Amino acid sequence: MAKVTIIEQVTKANDQIAAQNQALLDQTKTVAVNLMASPGAGKTSLLMRTVEALRGKLSIGAIEGDTASQVDADKVATTGVPVIQINTGGGCRLDANMVRPALEELPLDEIDLLLIENVGNLVCPAGLALGEHVNVVIASTPEGDDKPYKYPGMFLAVDTVVVNKIDLLPYLDFDMAAFEGLIAGLNPEARILPVSCATGEGLDAWTEWLIELCSKPAC
Amino acid sequence: MAKVTIIEQVTKANDQIAAQNQALLDQTKTVAVNLMASPGAGKTSLLMRTVEALRGKLSIGAIEGDTASQVDADKVATTGVPVIQINTGGGCRLDANMVRPALEELPLDEIDLLLIENVGNLVCPAGLALGEHVNVVIASTPEGDDKPYKYPGMFLAVDTVVVNKIDLLPYLDFDMAAFEGLIAGLNPEARILPVSCATGEGLDAWTEWLIELCSKPAC
Repeated sequence: MAKVTIIEQVTKANDQIAAQNQALLDQTKTVAVNLMASPGAGKTSLLMRTVEALRGKLSIGAIEGDTASQVDADKVATTGVPVIQINTGGGCRLDANMVRPALEELPLDEIDLLLIENVGNLVCPAGLALGEHVNVVIASTPEGDDKPYKYPGMFLAVDTVVVNKIDLLPYLDFDMAAFEGLIAGLNPEARILPVSCATGEGLDAWTEWLIELCSKPAC
Repeated sequence: MAKVTIIEQVTKANDQIAAQNQALLDQTKTVAVNLMASPGAGKTSLLMRTVEALRGKLSIGAIEGDTASQVDADKVATTGVPVIQINTGGGCRLDANMVRPALEELPLDEIDLLLIENVGNLVCPAGLALGEHVNVVIASTPEGDDKPYKYPGMFLAVDTVVVNKIDLLPYLDFDMAAFEGLIAGLNPEARILPVSCATGEGLDAWTEWLIELCSKPAC
């Protein structure tokens, strides 16, 4: 029983810091998106495409979470947007306490949209608040259409499911209707956005949703 | 400091149970392989292909680890091999204590090769012993060639790297030489086996390695 109590306290402490992070973001009218996915599903590619598509429309900042290395932050920095790398030192997810100093480093006053790329993982980051306003999972078609069934915690915890790599559909055994059916059963409110970061297909719906998010008075 | 001590004790307790699991496997001359990968990289597909290719050569058993569902165990059961599903209840990896009762359920006396499919995750399962004799990671070409750089803990912890989905290489920006270079830098002893579970290409080298493992007197 003692162990359970400790875990609850850790989660509670995280939630308190996450709430402080969100208050900080609200003060500067910055909308934060927590981007989650398996390794290699296309988090950095989507982020790069988003920066490119929204140039002149929204001012973007980024936080890159990884177990090691800063290769993603270096890539994002080439676009000119402010970016902070967080290395978790082997940890399988970001938490609110890791995000806090990154928020303090970033010029939030000048940022409309903060994209937080979590560690590549479909288990650990699900449901752990960072201070974000919305949660997004990127599913990738080569991973197969059964992932919502096998990682329900993640697919339950998100507002939007981006289905990336639709350019590979002709070469894969991926049933989009079956995938959408699983999401509808688990999380019927979730928006599903099929895209290809390689060809650009479908990205308009994604960026329009982000613009809509950033135009709400609550944000 | 107290927290660090607790974590060390947990790992130590796991290692003790893992050693007992390995002793049990050694008694029955069963070689155990810990199969790790991102979600959707092809763990179950490789397992199904392996059972098919080794029918009449090795007697196989399987343990399927998932956060939820038993869809993988149901698939594997169609091949006729004995299989046990372990649901971690949201946990991001198997541990030695979860594997123990599965070993007790399986007819180990009749099993030459036990394939343990870990939870889909490139972070948590790395380096946590289950009782296995060898560790394998399956990397998937659509994930990109930079994964060893971003998940070094996993690529350091394995004996063999299977590179799956090579049938998709013509449609991807995946540089096999760059990938192999990263592995050579991190873990020069690791064997690299490019395969396609879709077409069967490259699987002979994989099954030959498994046959060789099972023919060693130590196993």
